[in-house]
Amino acid sequence: MRKVPVGPDVACMTLARGTPGFSGADLANLVNEAALLAARCDHPHVTGADFERARDRVLMGAERRSLTLTYEEREMTAYHEAGHALVAFHSPEHDPLHKVSIVPRSRALGVTMSLPERDRYCFSRKQLESRVAMMFGGRVAEELIYGADEVTTGASDDIRQATLLARRMVTEFGFSDAIGPVYCESAREVIPGQSVEVSPDTALAIDKEIRRVAEQGRARARQILNDHVDQLRLFAHALLERETLSGDEIRALLTANLGAHSALGIEMSVPSTG
Amino acid sequence: MRKVPVGPDVACMTLARGTPGFSGADLANLVNEAALLAARCDHPHVTGADFERARDRVLMGAERRSLTLTYEEREMTAYHEAGHALVAFHSPEHDPLHKVSIVPRSRALGVTMSLPERDRYCFSRKQLESRVAMMFGGRVAEELIYGADEVTTGASDDIRQATLLARRMVTEFGFSDAIGPVYCESAREVIPGQSVEVSPDTALAIDKEIRRVAEQGRARARQILNDHVDQLRLFAHALLERETLSGDEIRALLTANLGAHSALGIEMSVPSTG
Amino acid sequence: MRKVPVGPDVACMTLARGTPGFSGADLANLVNEAALLAARCDHPHVTGADFERARDRVLMGAERRSLTLTYEEREMTAYHEAGHALVAFHSPEHDPLHKVSIVPRSRALGVTMSLPERDRYCFSRKQLESRVAMMFGGRVAEELIYGADEVTTGASDDIRQATLLARRMVTEFGFSDAIGPVYCESAREVIPGQSVEVSPDTALAIDKEIRRVAEQGRARARQILNDHVDQLRLFAHALLERETLSGDEIRALLTANLGAHSALGIEMSVPSTG
Amino acid sequence: MRKVPVGPDVACMTLARGTPGFSGADLANLVNEAALLAARCDHPHVTGADFERARDRVLMGAERRSLTLTYEEREMTAYHEAGHALVAFHSPEHDPLHKVSIVPRSRALGVTMSLPERDRYCFSRKQLESRVAMMFGGRVAEELIYGADEVTTGASDDIRQATLLARRMVTEFGFSDAIGPVYCESAREVIPGQSVEVSPDTALAIDKEIRRVAEQGRARARQILNDHVDQLRLFAHALLERETLSGDEIRALLTANLGAHSALGIEMSVPSTG
Amino acid sequence: MRKVPVGPDVACMTLARGTPGFSGADLANLVNEAALLAARCDHPHVTGADFERARDRVLMGAERRSLTLTYEEREMTAYHEAGHALVAFHSPEHDPLHKVSIVPRSRALGVTMSLPERDRYCFSRKQLESRVAMMFGGRVAEELIYGADEVTTGASDDIRQATLLARRMVTEFGFSDAIGPVYCESAREVIPGQSVEVSPDTALAIDKEIRRVAEQGRARARQILNDHVDQLRLFAHALLERETLSGDEIRALLTANLGAHSALGIEMSVPSTG
Amino acid sequence: MRKVPVGPDVACMTLARGTPGFSGADLANLVNEAALLAARCDHPHVTGADFERARDRVLMGAERRSLTLTYEEREMTAYHEAGHALVAFHSPEHDPLHKVSIVPRSRALGVTMSLPERDRYCFSRKQLESRVAMMFGGRVAEELIYGADEVTTGASDDIRQATLLARRMVTEFGFSDAIGPVYCESAREVIPGQSVEVSPDTALAIDKEIRRVAEQGRARARQILNDHVDQLRLFAHALLERETLSGDEIRALLTANLGAHSALGIEMSVPSTG
Repeated sequence: MRKVPVGPDVACMTLARGTPGFSGADLANLVNEAALLAARCDHPHVTGADFERARDRVLMGAERRSLTLTYEEREMTAYHEAGHALVAFHSPEHDPLHKVSIVPRSRALGVTMSLPERDRYCFSRKQLESRVAMMFGGRVAEELIYGADEVTTGASDDIRQATLLARRMVTEFGFSDAIGPVYCESAREVIPGQSVEVSPDTALAIDKEIRRVAEQGRARARQILNDHVDQLRLFAHALLERETLSGDEIRALLTANLGAHSALGIEMSVPSTG
Repeated sequence: MRKVPVGPDVACMTLARGTPGFSGADLANLVNEAALLAARCDHPHVTGADFERARDRVLMGAERRSLTLTYEEREMTAYHEAGHALVAFHSPEHDPLHKVSIVPRSRALGVTMSLPERDRYCFSRKQLESRVAMMFGGRVAEELIYGADEVTTGASDDIRQATLLARRMVTEFGFSDAIGPVYCESAREVIPGQSVEVSPDTALAIDKEIRRVAEQGRARARQILNDHVDQLRLFAHALLERETLSGDEIRALLTANLGAHSALGIEMSVPSTG
Repeated sequence: MRKVPVGPDVACMTLARGTPGFSGADLANLVNEAALLAARCDHPHVTGADFERARDRVLMGAERRSLTLTYEEREMTAYHEAGHALVAFHSPEHDPLHKVSIVPRSRALGVTMSLPERDRYCFSRKQLESRVAMMFGGRVAEELIYGADEVTTGASDDIRQATLLARRMVTEFGFSDAIGPVYCESAREVIPGQSVEVSPDTALAIDKEIRRVAEQGRARARQILNDHVDQLRLFAHALLERETLSGDEIRALLTANLGAHSALGIEMSVPSTG
Repeated sequence: MRKVPVGPDVACMTLARGTPGFSGADLANLVNEAALLAARCDHPHVTGADFERARDRVLMGAERRSLTLTYEEREMTAYHEAGHALVAFHSPEHDPLHKVSIVPRSRALGVTMSLPERDRYCFSRKQLESRVAMMFGGRVAEELIYGADEVTTGASDDIRQATLLARRMVTEFGFSDAIGPVYCESAREVIPGQSVEVSPDTALAIDKEIRRVAEQGRARARQILNDHVDQLRLFAHALLERETLSGDEIRALLTANLGAHSALGIEMSVPSTG
Repeated sequence: MRKVPVGPDVACMTLARGTPGFSGADLANLVNEAALLAARCDHPHVTGADFERARDRVLMGAERRSLTLTYEEREMTAYHEAGHALVAFHSPEHDPLHKVSIVPRSRALGVTMSLPERDRYCFSRKQLESRVAMMFGGRVAEELIYGADEVTTGASDDIRQATLLARRMVTEFGFSDAIGPVYCESAREVIPGQSVEVSPDTALAIDKEIRRVAEQGRARARQILNDHVDQLRLFAHALLERETLSGDEIRALLTANLGAHSALGIEMSVPSTG
Repeated sequence: MRKVPVGPDVACMTLARGTPGFSGADLANLVNEAALLAARCDHPHVTGADFERARDRVLMGAERRSLTLTYEEREMTAYHEAGHALVAFHSPEHDPLHKVSIVPRSRALGVTMSLPERDRYCFSRKQLESRVAMMFGGRVAEELIYGADEVTTGASDDIRQATLLARRMVTEFGFSDAIGPVYCESAREVIPGQSVEVSPDTALAIDKEIRRVAEQGRARARQILNDHVDQLRLFAHALLERETLSGDEIRALLTANLGAHSALGIEMSVPSTG
């Protein structure tokens, strides 16, 4: 960091806070990316905005602004990301939202990003359950707005991530009463020829539990989005208009909306964080 | 593209529109093929027709005009391709037909090609269901015209493609209520020794769902071709006569026929696209 | 072909017609073999007979005339080959018989060879069903003449070929209603660790269908040979006497016999081809 | 053979008759062995006896006369070999007995050897059934003479050979009605990852059929040895006394005994060969 | 050891007693580590404290004092470790506690360490059962203090260790009446392709027994911690205050507490060791 | 053997009798070991005792006298070995006891060694059953003296050996009526991908038979040790006192004890050997 001229608006501590889980090498890489972006923009030194763009690039992939999408595709993406974000926002256990965007990036048409406040060393059952629910927020929003026949393949990575997390909850973390307090080989660690570890019946019980965890997460996402369908529309429209919303902008948007609703006498669960 | 002399009838934009999903390298390859074809025909510069032939060659394999087929084989092929094309034509979700041909090519005796209007990033459940139906159009047309005993092995690649797509709908895209919103290892990604992932009962449930999706697609193809058996004969005869039909020719042929039928008071679902 | 002196009785077109499915390299190999045989017989140029012997050698393996067989073994072989040939002869869908022989060759004690009239690109369900029946003709003839306790291991390759074909009919060509219009990994293409593809119940359903197809083929062979047991004896005796029968000789033999029978008022299904 | 001085008592034809299934290389090896044995015995040329000893050594392994066995072990071995030999002798389909011996060899404590009269190219169902029965003759004789608790591990190779043959009868030769005329992967040819070929239920049906074939063979051996228990004792005593019996000696011994028994009015099935 | 200057407070015998199971190479490594630590602290010779820190580093991983944890995380860790330690303390068969610490180390946020008094060569069923219970002490303490929804992923390694030990009790040590006195391949030793060893039903029986052993261990941990919830709080608070407690400090703390409780007339099972 | 000076008390024949199953290379190795031991003790030539110690070292592993065990551990070991030895002693089919010792060796805390009188080439069913029983003698003695909760992991190798032998009795030697006279792949010979050999149901039947054989062996060990619990204590005390007992000492000890018991009118089965 010492070799790169850094602008006066960059505080090391602030930077480190926004990059939990980064190793020393990750941070060095981040500084390089920021220096490259600053050079490309002819900044005399690396600004805080350069660092932020570099971090987003590292965490979420490069932007692909050349991609031309139809209005329908952008709208679908906006509802999908708004669905993720709203489920996270209304789950008190969830890490605060950092950014939601429908600018296409190398890995996806949109992105919803949460950042924990500090490095985490372990997670509670409730936190993981809310994460599974958040992952289903995108597909559930599509369903709610467009109907079940129009849901897209765009949620396949969400489903995969939710399934893998549900599997670990069941087979590694002892969070399933149906499986009990035992460790069952997780797929990532099975070595060829050791399929003897789990009997077919146990494998079926595991499959059922994984599905139960996934369906509970989806049901929770449905409950939250059904209860907040106005916020879902509001959020999606804001995304279509502004493309990217920061955590603070999201909180402002939804709290204002919350106030408006409250004024109309509508009851609403108040999120404790976010 | 700058190194190849290009004729005045070639518009870059038009060319790009007809090659969705092509990478930069794919496009470079296409330009080379077109230049070779132009040189072989002693064209002073690469014409639009050269580009079209080059693209067809890249997408569908080289023509094999030396292959001698009997009239029976050509007729069977014409009905097979007409079956694919009609199912696509009567499915509003399907990409527009680009070309249907019974000129033998390196990979098949005939070909039906649809082209999306733009690059696609995700697909809806309805779109994939109509694609499965389209894949069964060929076999169903053979059955309708020749009877179940005379259907041929020529549909085996269609069956394989439809099965692989149905599998992904069930195991990756969360489109099966019987399996639920979970990711099940798709065959393409299974790593040896990790067969522990799915229990035998879940594997059976997946098999059943794949079959259900395939049979629904086949039933839809049967419904469409039963409803339009006159168009099927018309289309097959046009193919036998002209060998290749462009998207525009297909639309003209079937719309004229549609008009004729309507004049006879026969009710018919009007395709929204195509 | 230009480097080898060819006799006046050899027509390229005729030669090509008798070698369907041969690639350019196969044909080059065939010409070499024929030249060698011609040289060994001190022929001034390669005769049509040299080409025919070369082709038989390539298709059926080298003759092993040094093998000494008992009369019982030769008779058993004659009935076995006559069984194959008669089932083919009485199946209208079957390719015409080209040659039947009980001269031992490198791969078998006898051989029955059919040749399609032209290259085939796909096969109908009926054609494959008649091929399965033809494969069982040998074992069924043994049973008919010698009794079930005396059937031999000589049919094991027929059984293997019939089973592999039945498997493809069921798992690749969509010809089984019990399995439906889906593709199931065929054994030839399964990659280690991907046994997840088919559940045990589906595997059992496939096993049952393969057996059904095989048993239907055997039943058809039994029906045909029971109906033509006189032809079976006639054919076997002709083979014992002449060792090899060409397609034309077979057709002459069986048509004459057919006439004789008809003269005796015995009803008989008339084969449409062959 | 031309380089080795051969005695006047050696006829090539006779030699060849006693070595069915020998390739040219096998015969060359045999001649070398015989020359070595002749040299070791200071024979001026290779005698017929040298050839016979060489052939036995090649077919049955080297003698191990240094092995010291108790009387009980020699007696057990004599009954075991007599059991094999008697079942073969009383099975008309079986190849004629060539030699039975209780001289320990490198691979076993005793040996029973049959030789077909000529090379065999295929086997009937009856012949294979009698071979399975013959393989169980040793264990059954032990049981009959010493009781079930005293049977030994000495029959484990017989059991393994009988099981492998039974498996081929069921899965390759189509000799099982319960499995039908289908080919099931035999163990020798299964390639890793292709276990998809046979479902668990089919595997169980195969296991049951293999067991049925083995148990029928054992039952037949029991029937034969129960019917000829006097011959079993006579044969075992002859082996204990003379160590090795040739085919001719066996036939003389058992026919004489047969005559004696007949004189006593005991009914007995007369073997057609042997 | 002779090359390193050792302080007068280090007795070889004492050192050896604290390192059961160490090989010669392990001890050499330990001496090196101690010498490095002594040099880093400018000690003139290696002190007993240097040896102790070196040993802890080898057994439990390096300290990571730079890790910043919240009060909630430290408290959760303190209850987790106190849970392990109390179950061990109240199990007479368990090895004496050596040290309990909530200083984060390379492998965990906290550690509970028992040391046997001497090398052990075998273990009784009761000893292994108490070890399984001890492993569940951490998760059970979390549950007791924070409720089932707040239990964390921090226990996943405990669950894994307990499961692997339970598996060996069932499959290697003959401690399960349901499985009986037989050896079943343990996962560690299974060789690819030998999955034939255990049938699916036996695999299920093993899975059930492993779960029974694990659940009995957890039930025992619950019983102990429910009976001693005051000690659990006392222990956790002591850890939060002092970070690390030695075996002697633990025994003093809990015995004093025990006296206090006894004074209040509360009945309590007196641990025989510890 | 000729290069090593051998003392007058060593008879080659005696030596050979005590080393059944030794190959020439094994014997050469034994002579080397004996010469080394003689040299280390400054014996002028290799004595009979040197040979005996060398043989024990080869057969049972090196002594580890440096191992310090508690009295409890030595007592447990003494009962364990006495259990093995008594079951062998009271099984007439068992090979005579050669030595029993509680001197720790490289592979175990104690050892019970039987030696057959001569090389064995096969084993009867009864002999193998008594060997299984002998293997369970150690665990059963622990149970009898200390109770089921105190049995140790020290028997895990016995259980493994007994299971592997039981498996061979069931799958290779045809000794199980439930499995029948068939060979089932034993684990040692299974090749990857050939798991097709045995169906899951057959695998379960095999598992059950293995367990039956093991439980019968354990029941027999229990019967013998229950009937001779006085001898068990006597034997264990003799081992604690003298550490090692030779075959002759064991026979003297138990026969004397037998006499004493008989004097008290207690009936007892007299072992025929030992």
